Amino acid sequence: MPQISQRGSDMPASPIRKLVPFAEAAKLKGRKVYHLNIGQPDIKTPEVAIQAIKNWDVKVVEYSHSAGNLSYRKKITKYYKNINIDIDENEVMITTGGSEAISFAFLTCLNPGDEVIIPEPFYANYNGFAIAAGVKVVPITSTIENDFALPAIQEFKKLITPKTKGIVICNPNNPTGYLYSQEELESLKEIVLENDLYLFSDEVYREFVYDGAKHFSAMHLKGLEQNVIMMDSVSKRYSECGVRIGTLITKNKSVMDTAMKFAQARLSPPSFGQVVGEASLDTPQSYFDEVYHEYIERRNYMVDALNKMEGVYSPMPKGAFYTVVKLPIDNASKFAQWLLEDFEYENQTVMVAPADGFYSTVGLGLNEVRIAYVLKIEDLKKAMEVLEHALRVYPGRTN
Amino acid sequence: MPQISQRGSDMPASPIRKLVPFAEAAKLKGRKVYHLNIGQPDIKTPEVAIQAIKNWDVKVVEYSHSAGNLSYRKKITKYYKNINIDIDENEVMITTGGSEAISFAFLTCLNPGDEVIIPEPFYANYNGFAIAAGVKVVPITSTIENDFALPAIQEFKKLITPKTKGIVICNPNNPTGYLYSQEELESLKEIVLENDLYLFSDEVYREFVYDGAKHFSAMHLKGLEQNVIMMDSVSKRYSECGVRIGTLITKNKSVMDTAMKFAQARLSPPSFGQVVGEASLDTPQSYFDEVYHEYIERRNYMVDALNKMEGVYSPMPKGAFYTVVKLPIDNASKFAQWLLEDFEYENQTVMVAPADGFYSTVGLGLNEVRIAYVLKIEDLKKAMEVLEHALRVYPGRTN
Repeated sequence: MPQISQRGSDMPASPIRKLVPFAEAAKLKGRKVYHLNIGQPDIKTPEVAIQAIKNWDVKVVEYSHSAGNLSYRKKITKYYKNINIDIDENEVMITTGGSEAISFAFLTCLNPGDEVIIPEPFYANYNGFAIAAGVKVVPITSTIENDFALPAIQEFKKLITPKTKGIVICNPNNPTGYLYSQEELESLKEIVLENDLYLFSDEVYREFVYDGAKHFSAMHLKGLEQNVIMMDSVSKRYSECGVRIGTLITKNKSVMDTAMKFAQARLSPPSFGQVVGEASLDTPQSYFDEVYHEYIERRNYMVDALNKMEGVYSPMPKGAFYTVVKLPIDNASKFAQWLLEDFEYENQTVMVAPADGFYSTVGLGLNEVRIAYVLKIEDLKKAMEVLEHALRVYPGRTN
Repeated sequence: MPQISQRGSDMPASPIRKLVPFAEAAKLKGRKVYHLNIGQPDIKTPEVAIQAIKNWDVKVVEYSHSAGNLSYRKKITKYYKNINIDIDENEVMITTGGSEAISFAFLTCLNPGDEVIIPEPFYANYNGFAIAAGVKVVPITSTIENDFALPAIQEFKKLITPKTKGIVICNPNNPTGYLYSQEELESLKEIVLENDLYLFSDEVYREFVYDGAKHFSAMHLKGLEQNVIMMDSVSKRYSECGVRIGTLITKNKSVMDTAMKFAQARLSPPSFGQVVGEASLDTPQSYFDEVYHEYIERRNYMVDALNKMEGVYSPMPKGAFYTVVKLPIDNASKFAQWLLEDFEYENQTVMVAPADGFYSTVGLGLNEVRIAYVLKIEDLKKAMEVLEHALRVYPGRTN
């Protein structure tokens, strides 16, 4: 029997997937499971997007242009101009989700053996795309003690080697919810220019920014136009995770021309998704206002509830819809499994994502979990109540 | 400015894309261009699929299971059982087009530096997926003199090295339209088993088989269950190129488990596409009968017309909707460009795909073009008339 590839063995299994059978078993027992573990919002997709599909009078569902429909690319440049990102239709490629944008960016810019520095904890799938591309992830640790701010630039400098070709940031951050400031990005700019690196900026949570803070994009960094590759997605912005539409954006023409060759090999991004994405650009501001108020209410409630629990600490995240929380426990994976397997409070339990899966450095995040506030406030309240009770009786409690 | 990657430089630009500006210029001059160059059928998508989308009462377009919706996977196993491919829902993964199935198969089974043998001419995008995965394509030449039959097994044996890990076939074949027989596949089985290889079988044109011939799948090869990876797609079967839905199929559990890790990294295949694909399984037989009659009429007309032209030879392909044709010309790329730039007959011209882009061996296919019969018969007739006139006056004609 032929063997699977080394990179196949190296690919990490999703840390959450290991828990799925336990969640299913809990549900079979009739238990209500609150999913705090996922990034799937419960928010409705805009009506204008759903209607566009119903009204699409298509006879033959054809391939689109490999870079995406021209009408969509033209229209989306207006969205970006509105947030001071000045690009034309040739500087944006429509991709199959933000996932494919990351994959194309790595394949286009990085050679096997090259290194990218990523502040950890980070979105675990960056590992997957790096392994597929033969790229080595070099983590730089951000800490909960510092509310997951960008590590100091001198720490980055220590990690630069001749193999370093890029830095990856996610802003606002998944899993921490941290919003990088203009100052932090400006400090990254220096090190990027000094070492002739790429700056890969994942900005899919751009609209999820709270407390009057303003999102500062890597595309706003003056003089860094040839180094910045931005990855974006409609998934969270319009609650369209399933349509699989993202964008790859850069002013660097060689990068875009080369990414186009990878795009042509896979023919085109999904046609229905593109119709949804294009129509979503007409989503009224009232939709975003509602979503904003919903999330800020959830965040405020949840972070407050968490910090009231004894021995628990959560920073107050300024963006996205996640927070990484420190718990008074021995091991988050064991705790997460125990919650599903052995615990119930009024026939309910919660599912959380152990944070060690978001760290590249072994041994970090063992007493942290990522919690997503993607549940409606009533459910979130119940989920917090359940979590509080669980922490009281968990046998591996540490203080 | 940072450099693009070596694999990015190595990626071939699509051979057809180079001609696109010339086609556009011809159209700007008011010229009618018959597209014989593309694999985009003009056949309508089944009504049952379009209606499924219009009737889909979706509120939140969520991620699906990374392997695709369970209901779709269960239902599609019935389609496969009907053609004697006995798999269960865990042996099929829904992918983002057949493209992603190929990509996952290579990433899962092959290491950088590994070699796969592919009969040339072959679907040019195999090169792209191989380069992305760091895999070396070793071509084995099939010839028009032999109507593009499978090269003799002793020729395969000469190419086997310690790095050889697989053989890729496309059956029926794009670009040649050749349908591999059971005997040819059985002969491949031996060499695959002897050398512990994977057999990657791209069967997206399965339904396009003519003259009473029967399609024999690599999945039908007894005793090869652990070696066969089948790639499939709804694109051509139901004229749904744009929905981007394919399947990766294998009885090899390690391969499927590993492919799942790559699938999880990109989250899920497109939701709308899955609804379309699942509904398409209910397409009535009358649809396929109509399509069959349409294509057979086109094929018969076209191949006959080609072979009547002086100095032209086309095999009679038994499958797909392409043929590779030998023309009495100096260079197919020059000819294709000349057709668009310098030629017109009654203000019409044709666009063809130079066949050298489908060969890996430099210098082969220079007087061959791939022609797709994806135009309705009236247009195909005109296109053949135009081609005949063009060949008479082309300055680079060789006999």
